[in-house]
Amino acid sequence: MATLQAIKYNDGQLEILDQLLLPESCTFIPIWNVEDAWAAIREMKVRGAPAIAIVGCLSLAVELRKLAAPETKEELCRLVQEKLDYLVTSRPTAVNMHLAAEACVKLCTRLTDNTSVNVAEAKDDIVKHLEAMLANDIADNRAIGEHGASDIMKKNATKDKLRMMTHCNTGSLATAGFGTALGVIRSLHTASKLDQVYCTETRPYNQGSRLTAFELVYEKIPATLVCDSMAAAAMKQFKIDAVIVGADRVAANGDTANKIGTYQLAVLAKSHDILFYVAAPFSSIDFQIPNGHSIPIEERPHSEMTHTGSIRTAAAGINCWNPGFDVTPAELITGGIITEKGVFKPDQLAPHQ
Amino acid sequence: MATLQAIKYNDGQLEILDQLLLPESCTFIPIWNVEDAWAAIREMKVRGAPAIAIVGCLSLAVELRKLAAPETKEELCRLVQEKLDYLVTSRPTAVNMHLAAEACVKLCTRLTDNTSVNVAEAKDDIVKHLEAMLANDIADNRAIGEHGASDIMKKNATKDKLRMMTHCNTGSLATAGFGTALGVIRSLHTASKLDQVYCTETRPYNQGSRLTAFELVYEKIPATLVCDSMAAAAMKQFKIDAVIVGADRVAANGDTANKIGTYQLAVLAKSHDILFYVAAPFSSIDFQIPNGHSIPIEERPHSEMTHTGSIRTAAAGINCWNPGFDVTPAELITGGIITEKGVFKPDQLAPHQ
Repeated sequence: MATLQAIKYNDGQLEILDQLLLPESCTFIPIWNVEDAWAAIREMKVRGAPAIAIVGCLSLAVELRKLAAPETKEELCRLVQEKLDYLVTSRPTAVNMHLAAEACVKLCTRLTDNTSVNVAEAKDDIVKHLEAMLANDIADNRAIGEHGASDIMKKNATKDKLRMMTHCNTGSLATAGFGTALGVIRSLHTASKLDQVYCTETRPYNQGSRLTAFELVYEKIPATLVCDSMAAAAMKQFKIDAVIVGADRVAANGDTANKIGTYQLAVLAKSHDILFYVAAPFSSIDFQIPNGHSIPIEERPHSEMTHTGSIRTAAAGINCWNPGFDVTPAELITGGIITEKGVFKPDQLAPHQ
Repeated sequence: MATLQAIKYNDGQLEILDQLLLPESCTFIPIWNVEDAWAAIREMKVRGAPAIAIVGCLSLAVELRKLAAPETKEELCRLVQEKLDYLVTSRPTAVNMHLAAEACVKLCTRLTDNTSVNVAEAKDDIVKHLEAMLANDIADNRAIGEHGASDIMKKNATKDKLRMMTHCNTGSLATAGFGTALGVIRSLHTASKLDQVYCTETRPYNQGSRLTAFELVYEKIPATLVCDSMAAAAMKQFKIDAVIVGADRVAANGDTANKIGTYQLAVLAKSHDILFYVAAPFSSIDFQIPNGHSIPIEERPHSEMTHTGSIRTAAAGINCWNPGFDVTPAELITGGIITEKGVFKPDQLAPHQ
């Protein structure tokens, strides 16, 4: 079964699946430059921290391929940095775009310092670096899937098949492909160890019902959709074995910013004695910030809560609170943080693992 | 400020506000007979356990007023009982309609046994009994509001103003008027003790965003709408003082069936050291059932989760779980059960309080 491919890149041509049109329509839109990418990220045509970084970086690759090499490497690097700075402003909470920008700027510096590289070669190297992110992300996700599935199976060795719960979308539609938390669930399914995955609707943007459900139906993975309000009742009634979510940013102490509703699931999992896992590329761990208090939380427009398309679903005039994310304290991440480098207890994270 | 009146009854004429059209339109529809009432209840044009019972009973009053008195009181009572049995099937979880039916059948038996009453007088007495429910419910709700507000103020005596959270709709739109849980919040507001009420969206039917928000805006009560997934984050960030919800049915031991999502809020309140209250008319307590395990939980159509109006919000083909209610164990009801007879600890309920 082919996994859904939401980011298509080939020889300087970038297309992304417009996720706003799911589940009604499966439409790809071209991204010609960083402005297109910035708008697509801001409007959530593409979302998920890894996918945001990849689309941002690939949009820069598209521009650089078309660009005649500037006079100097300094000029090239100034241009690259400007565009990266701009891309970073599209969604402030996700760390991956920040880190991708940092890595690219470091590469620029190295290329500038290296007198044996001319400006055209430097441009090519930067393009190659940006383009490699797609394949690297898929490889990382497959490793996350393997590490996570084997940890969960080990901790549930007496059970034939497992019941998982997940939140938001962390699959092919949030990453370059395969997925993080949903990748672990894919790996469990491939290993014939998945009884059922319960996916939450994930209000107000319905990433669970629109996107995760779409992927699960697409790949015939046994799945049941629940409203966010049903999580505790489902945990109790269906005896969920583990909850697994993604991360937009993990602090050095393991505190994790992720889609609003994650903190609540972690509290509920703890109350029901259910293991709670975070799955994310190692690059989502931001060792610059000591704990979750320092993670900026984006507030999103009220219209996401008051309307579904053109249909008003909330009374006119009501005040809304619409944070995009919340922070789950490390101590609630009882299963561990699953990365491509292995599964870590939140208090055992270190930069060079 | 006039409270919103959702059930209008006058001299054998019954009209109800069609809540399915809120918040877009405020439209009243006539109820001519018990079939109309059954359909309106089933389709959720009217909802909330007390309102269901009142509309059901008033629809019977409408029919009886138009009916020529049967030959015998036995025949009258058989007819009344048939219609009540039918009304009870409209929503199986709510106890109020059951209890209202029982009370009416008892009255029928008394009237049949009383040889000094003829069949026309018996019919009049039954109609009067049914019609009295509207005013009685409002009086009960005002008492619930007073008892609840004073208990909450007493337990938060050091605080100037309180931050409350509520779920679903338990206000004028769920009762004859004023409301149960929302009535307590109204009373706090009237006493100038309400800082802010956070109301949950209450998926999948959005009773919070459509109905509670509508009432709160209508009466200018300071309110903020949150998604169900934001409850824990809001509890933490805004330092909520108490959570208060209604009840569809309370078991003898205090276990409470209420709108899906209630159990989850109770677990979250406990984790955040926040008092959790249930507010309901004493008639919602069903002393026939020992605990929550015996409460039947209605499962509702998947379309409630997959569509908003004609807009598909979930991937085609996804399986759904859509229980209408869940059961909150008595031990999580840390504030107490607020009734028109006073506030009770869940383990202190007794039939003749």
